[in-house]
Amino acid sequence: MRDYQLRCISCGKSYLEKSDLYWCHDCGPLKGTLEIIYDFNQINISKNFSKKGDITQFEDLLPVKFQTNLDQQVGGTPFIKFNHQFGVRELMIKFDGVSLSGSYKDRASIIAINKALQYGKEAIFCASTGNAASSLAILSAHTALKTYIFVPSSIPSAKLAQLHAAGAEVIAIQGSYDEAFDLSMEIGLKKGWYCRNSAINPYLLEGKKTGAYEIIIQNDYVAPDFCFVGVGDGTIISSICKGFMEFKQLGLIDKIPKVIGVQAEGAATLKKVYDSGKPYEPIFETVSTVADSISVGNPRDVIKACTYMEKINGEFLTVSDDEIIHSIQSLTSETGVFSEPAGAVGYAALQKMKNDGRISHEDTVCLFVTGNGLKDIKSAESMIKRQNFSKEEARKYLEGV
Amino acid sequence: MRDYQLRCISCGKSYLEKSDLYWCHDCGPLKGTLEIIYDFNQINISKNFSKKGDITQFEDLLPVKFQTNLDQQVGGTPFIKFNHQFGVRELMIKFDGVSLSGSYKDRASIIAINKALQYGKEAIFCASTGNAASSLAILSAHTALKTYIFVPSSIPSAKLAQLHAAGAEVIAIQGSYDEAFDLSMEIGLKKGWYCRNSAINPYLLEGKKTGAYEIIIQNDYVAPDFCFVGVGDGTIISSICKGFMEFKQLGLIDKIPKVIGVQAEGAATLKKVYDSGKPYEPIFETVSTVADSISVGNPRDVIKACTYMEKINGEFLTVSDDEIIHSIQSLTSETGVFSEPAGAVGYAALQKMKNDGRISHEDTVCLFVTGNGLKDIKSAESMIKRQNFSKEEARKYLEGV
Repeated sequence: MRDYQLRCISCGKSYLEKSDLYWCHDCGPLKGTLEIIYDFNQINISKNFSKKGDITQFEDLLPVKFQTNLDQQVGGTPFIKFNHQFGVRELMIKFDGVSLSGSYKDRASIIAINKALQYGKEAIFCASTGNAASSLAILSAHTALKTYIFVPSSIPSAKLAQLHAAGAEVIAIQGSYDEAFDLSMEIGLKKGWYCRNSAINPYLLEGKKTGAYEIIIQNDYVAPDFCFVGVGDGTIISSICKGFMEFKQLGLIDKIPKVIGVQAEGAATLKKVYDSGKPYEPIFETVSTVADSISVGNPRDVIKACTYMEKINGEFLTVSDDEIIHSIQSLTSETGVFSEPAGAVGYAALQKMKNDGRISHEDTVCLFVTGNGLKDIKSAESMIKRQNFSKEEARKYLEGV
Repeated sequence: MRDYQLRCISCGKSYLEKSDLYWCHDCGPLKGTLEIIYDFNQINISKNFSKKGDITQFEDLLPVKFQTNLDQQVGGTPFIKFNHQFGVRELMIKFDGVSLSGSYKDRASIIAINKALQYGKEAIFCASTGNAASSLAILSAHTALKTYIFVPSSIPSAKLAQLHAAGAEVIAIQGSYDEAFDLSMEIGLKKGWYCRNSAINPYLLEGKKTGAYEIIIQNDYVAPDFCFVGVGDGTIISSICKGFMEFKQLGLIDKIPKVIGVQAEGAATLKKVYDSGKPYEPIFETVSTVADSISVGNPRDVIKACTYMEKINGEFLTVSDDEIIHSIQSLTSETGVFSEPAGAVGYAALQKMKNDGRISHEDTVCLFVTGNGLKDIKSAESMIKRQNFSKEEARKYLEGV
């Protein structure tokens, strides 16, 4: 664990760590999300991280001391490389769908859980219908923490199943996801439970930045030219930017990749804010896309995401639902990586930039695939053409192949 | 790749490698499954395998040379240890649900794919409704091999989705799984495609034995007292036995764990054959259990499984469907490992042996959890009690906790 301060992304005010400090008191929870700031001047980090190492190898660059049974099961996810294929010099895939709960969110949940234990909390909570919830439930299962997950009661049974199996207390309420979120904040904070709501908790981003660290390490400390990341709330993209910036500051890479934040056309709120320029202001929209995990109309890390992306000259792109669904199939059939819709958006955006001539055979490209296709089988199902051969028909059909 | 011979498990006749050799010509496909036999006398293996290494680190103990893009994504799965909990000295969980396709079958498929490439085959096939099929489709996706999967047309869409996404050609036929299997053999062999059907292909077991290797390495070359493995066809249990026997022969462990093969009460065919003693004869039964992946009425590796288990003094146990479903929840909520029903049977059997006083606080125990809970969400769903709180009800309910 490294010493750190917390700093408001909007007004720059600094705070010292406190167990119930989540946002800047002057700027409020949406504009006043906090950054974790370290003094990296005093430290010397050399290039000898392990390519298959888990998240605990980064403890010296994180605001937490690891102490659970599952710490060593987070991070160290596959990094798969294809050379001179797909119209680029190198295509790299960072696949976090193969993690304990099946998504990138494990990197954040493990930090929140360790913080809750450090603060002596008895319980931890979040509002989520998806990956954040299942990740928190799975990783906290073995700890002494009681886990509360607030969801709208319309949540599909398949998503509930993993939460229930993990022994989380699921509070299903009549109302929307936003109402579940607000109720979780009202009750959770009053009860003194630890909050693992995305963007509200400033430590989550610190766990997520380790994905950026890992691709640099797994690529022998060479930064790819381009990185593609799906964007909903804005926390993962912020974390990827921060990870690269920190490794640059530490002298571990020479350049920062061109980061492309990819949103669904029907849920492009963050892109809209970024493209209209400073000052970045949170907005709320009604959105719709098949890519469940990035279907966000009120992105809660909007200011951080825009600020970081501006710093590193990043860019946002959109892709259509059709392109997303098609990409699940192309990505899986060409690389063996089976992704949930939100994880396949990067592949769709890569095709777009190749077609536009903005990415060439000379470029190296990394896709962050953040969730497992088994988590959301609906979109993949929509592509199935069912057959029902008799044996004779099958014989005949296969004669011709 | 190590030199080897093939030997019939029933008559002991030896064969040299040939691309279309799958079983002993004298004993037929059911009784004449082949073993891969190496001459380990000439080699010296030291205890410096990597704890996080993938399957390629075992090439010197395998009948194959690795050559695909995904070889390094197979094996090296989590090994999670809990000390002085669960009523035993150490509980270890080997979790292959966190593999590229989500099951233990990746270890077998990667070997078959490399063999097919070695033989210059253009296509590979299997009949499967589950893990074997999705594993083959995912791992072969990026290769030049065309992949054919034979299934009964009644297969649920969710299972089809991953196969289609991976670009496999799915041949769905009117009829049972057994009819799909027979048709796959008839057409596949006639076409000269490579066969990845369980037990038929003698190399699959070689990939699967690496799970046994890994737990020994990950446990610092100390064999646990007990190992629990779910049993359907008999191939995985045979492979675990073989892995332990080979490591003992190579001087890497002092003893072989007590291996407990666990079957569902409604599908205990292999246990029945083993318990009635020699000569072991294949039998066919009608079976039924929630644990899809081990619901097998005509186990195809019955002779090998019984022969190996006898050699190492193994034992078969059964657990009920209720115990299996309950175990998914206990295992997940106590360890964070979310298992498909077939993977949770070991945990159920452990409880049984603790209750019977056959396993004590002094013992070390390893469970092989062979598939991800996301692969078969039905059983976990059956435990859900749905709520629908109004906000006021939620506030009131949580006041009391």
